Amino acid sequence: MESYIYPQRKDWSNIVKRASFDNSSLRDAVSDVLSKIKNDGDKALFELEEQFDKVSLTSFKVNEEEFKEAENLLSNDLKNAIDRASINIEKFHASQKHEINKVETSYGVICWQKSVGIDVVGLYIPGGTAPLFSTVLMLAVPAKIAGCRKRVLCTPPNRNGKVHPAILYAAMKAGVTEVYKLGGIQAIGAMAYGTESVPKVYKIFGPGNQYVTMAKQLVSLKEVAIDMPAGPSEVAIIADESADAAFVASDFLSQAEHGSDSQALLFTTDKEFAEKVKIEVETQLEKLPRKELTSKSLEHSKIIVLTNNDDLMELVNEYAPEHLIIQAKNYNNLAERVVNAGSVFLGPYTPESAGDYASGTNHTLPTNGYAKAYSGVNLDSFIRKITFQEISKQGLEKLGPVIEIMAENESLIAHKRAVSIRLNKKD
Amino acid sequence: MESYIYPQRKDWSNIVKRASFDNSSLRDAVSDVLSKIKNDGDKALFELEEQFDKVSLTSFKVNEEEFKEAENLLSNDLKNAIDRASINIEKFHASQKHEINKVETSYGVICWQKSVGIDVVGLYIPGGTAPLFSTVLMLAVPAKIAGCRKRVLCTPPNRNGKVHPAILYAAMKAGVTEVYKLGGIQAIGAMAYGTESVPKVYKIFGPGNQYVTMAKQLVSLKEVAIDMPAGPSEVAIIADESADAAFVASDFLSQAEHGSDSQALLFTTDKEFAEKVKIEVETQLEKLPRKELTSKSLEHSKIIVLTNNDDLMELVNEYAPEHLIIQAKNYNNLAERVVNAGSVFLGPYTPESAGDYASGTNHTLPTNGYAKAYSGVNLDSFIRKITFQEISKQGLEKLGPVIEIMAENESLIAHKRAVSIRLNKKD
Repeated sequence: MESYIYPQRKDWSNIVKRASFDNSSLRDAVSDVLSKIKNDGDKALFELEEQFDKVSLTSFKVNEEEFKEAENLLSNDLKNAIDRASINIEKFHASQKHEINKVETSYGVICWQKSVGIDVVGLYIPGGTAPLFSTVLMLAVPAKIAGCRKRVLCTPPNRNGKVHPAILYAAMKAGVTEVYKLGGIQAIGAMAYGTESVPKVYKIFGPGNQYVTMAKQLVSLKEVAIDMPAGPSEVAIIADESADAAFVASDFLSQAEHGSDSQALLFTTDKEFAEKVKIEVETQLEKLPRKELTSKSLEHSKIIVLTNNDDLMELVNEYAPEHLIIQAKNYNNLAERVVNAGSVFLGPYTPESAGDYASGTNHTLPTNGYAKAYSGVNLDSFIRKITFQEISKQGLEKLGPVIEIMAENESLIAHKRAVSIRLNKKD
Repeated sequence: MESYIYPQRKDWSNIVKRASFDNSSLRDAVSDVLSKIKNDGDKALFELEEQFDKVSLTSFKVNEEEFKEAENLLSNDLKNAIDRASINIEKFHASQKHEINKVETSYGVICWQKSVGIDVVGLYIPGGTAPLFSTVLMLAVPAKIAGCRKRVLCTPPNRNGKVHPAILYAAMKAGVTEVYKLGGIQAIGAMAYGTESVPKVYKIFGPGNQYVTMAKQLVSLKEVAIDMPAGPSEVAIIADESADAAFVASDFLSQAEHGSDSQALLFTTDKEFAEKVKIEVETQLEKLPRKELTSKSLEHSKIIVLTNNDDLMELVNEYAPEHLIIQAKNYNNLAERVVNAGSVFLGPYTPESAGDYASGTNHTLPTNGYAKAYSGVNLDSFIRKITFQEISKQGLEKLGPVIEIMAENESLIAHKRAVSIRLNKKD
């Protein structure tokens, strides 16, 4: 964990520069697997599951019995927690709905947007050491609220051909309509092209390793939409001497434990406070079970001390963090000045973990500086805003000449005539 | 123009299947040009402008004098029309703003979204036979309303190094902050990477040929966001015997004149009406200046007669048209059943040209079936919805245990401790 005390402006962009993760060398390998799935459908999927997930499946779809089994296997405490989180996520995403607002842009010209759910969506939940049931909620709950008709989920089975019960319980709770045992490139290819067993979807959501990311990028060039490009998770923390250094250190570490490529950055104007946090990080690290992995990500984590808040906000916005925690006395003022960030956590009692699990906001957020151009997943991610318009005869009489002149000057005479023929019609 | 009378269901998907436009063979060539721009900046741009646009420039940026000249060159009629259209586009896109809505998802847990404009956006306007000043309005007006700070526009110069005055006037009117004389791959590369003259942007918008489309796709894999994938323009018209066949034919033709790859489809349940429209199309075609090009796109345009409205709506939704015109007696009922479309035009006096130019809706819309997953350009395209949350001490006391159980079950112990350390703090 390196510290930068009052760095010169010319060095700023280097300090917040992320390690570059180039997965383009995987392009050909991933592309080959995708072609197999496109050409051979289920047959390819069975073979690939055997090859990559070391499991011999006879079908992909999780059945009713497996869902019931999952529900019985889970502790009541965890089920209650999932239920509570699910309710909060539902409340927040439901609040993102908007009534239809019909606007008369000029006399007799009525225009409006209507939000319509994407008919078929695909959600990918990776496997690995821990079951990401929280991500199931984050994707499936807004998909249900949006009115997506089919909500397909793919996740890799273990070597016994089973899916973790917490994932199945969360899927049930969040209204996933079908779950398939498919991991990695198989899952992405199956949902992008459709096979005998798996329906083709129109948009694919969810995290994954570099193979999944490359597969999503490749299919997004032609077949389907995707949520956003993925990269390692990250947090920026703005804090001052009014903050509790132990709280700040705990947030710093909770980001660092995500993976060895995660990054945590502390921005402060107080040199002594920075030192306190550093010591707290080292102390708390000792007690963590994922100490080794966490230490690795601390190697590229940083403490940055700047002379004033203007500089600080400029550099934070340049970094464009996925998560931004502000624990400073004037945190509301600083929050007003956030231009680039995925999700912002305000005040001493708002740890990032709250948003990761249960406060209601989404945890699928833009990493790698993409917060400059992308929102995190939200209700909009699952809908299209279709525009409608209706013009009265009198409305077209007034607006028609404007259209005619513009069309003529763009040399689109049939466009002009579509107006003229209506204006010239004798009643 | 082929007619399909009561086709069998098994043939449906083939009838609405689009010609496949595969630009992947251009990948390497476009990629080479992009690398040149990335490495050599302005120097590469000067050379490429000479090579592709046959013009030797000394600078790219359009200056004040050129803007004034443009304003003087344009007729008052056209200026007034652009002004009127601009006002309507502004009204409709401004109506898409939403107030911040703070939600208490559970006791003491407050979450909200804040819309923040993408700081720097790039707008591309192609060259060619006609100046697409209408597209300038469609992109720049919402960018201004969204609060994007820098609104950069690139468009190719003619062989005298000039930009068409209507484009410059529209850019001025719509609040573009800087215009550069750059066409095709040069424009996309310059905005994606930034050069000595051209600022790097975070998201690129706008239409273009297959080279521009490939360049946008390539840079979107890493450097910037893009509005949406592009394809040939298209319309689906639903009409019945209550409609005026001449109106319908004029809409059909106004789509067909866009380019030889455009497509128009008429869906109806009335065989006689279909025949009437066909005759009208042939009659009106004769009078069009772009007759030859329009005939070409009529070759892949179609008239589809189905037995009932249920079938008709199913097939239209399967096609997922960019533009959908409904001229039928029960047009509001049919409109309710639209699931996949970019922009919908209702009733006899609402030609597509109205939305193309002046009613206020956006004309940058998803083609090629992408309406299944993408919205057209709208205010959201230029903003990010950043989430914020603030939790009180009491709020965290209530929600904390839920977070702790979930984090523990995902084996993220530092996430759990970020909560516990706060809950355990002695006052």
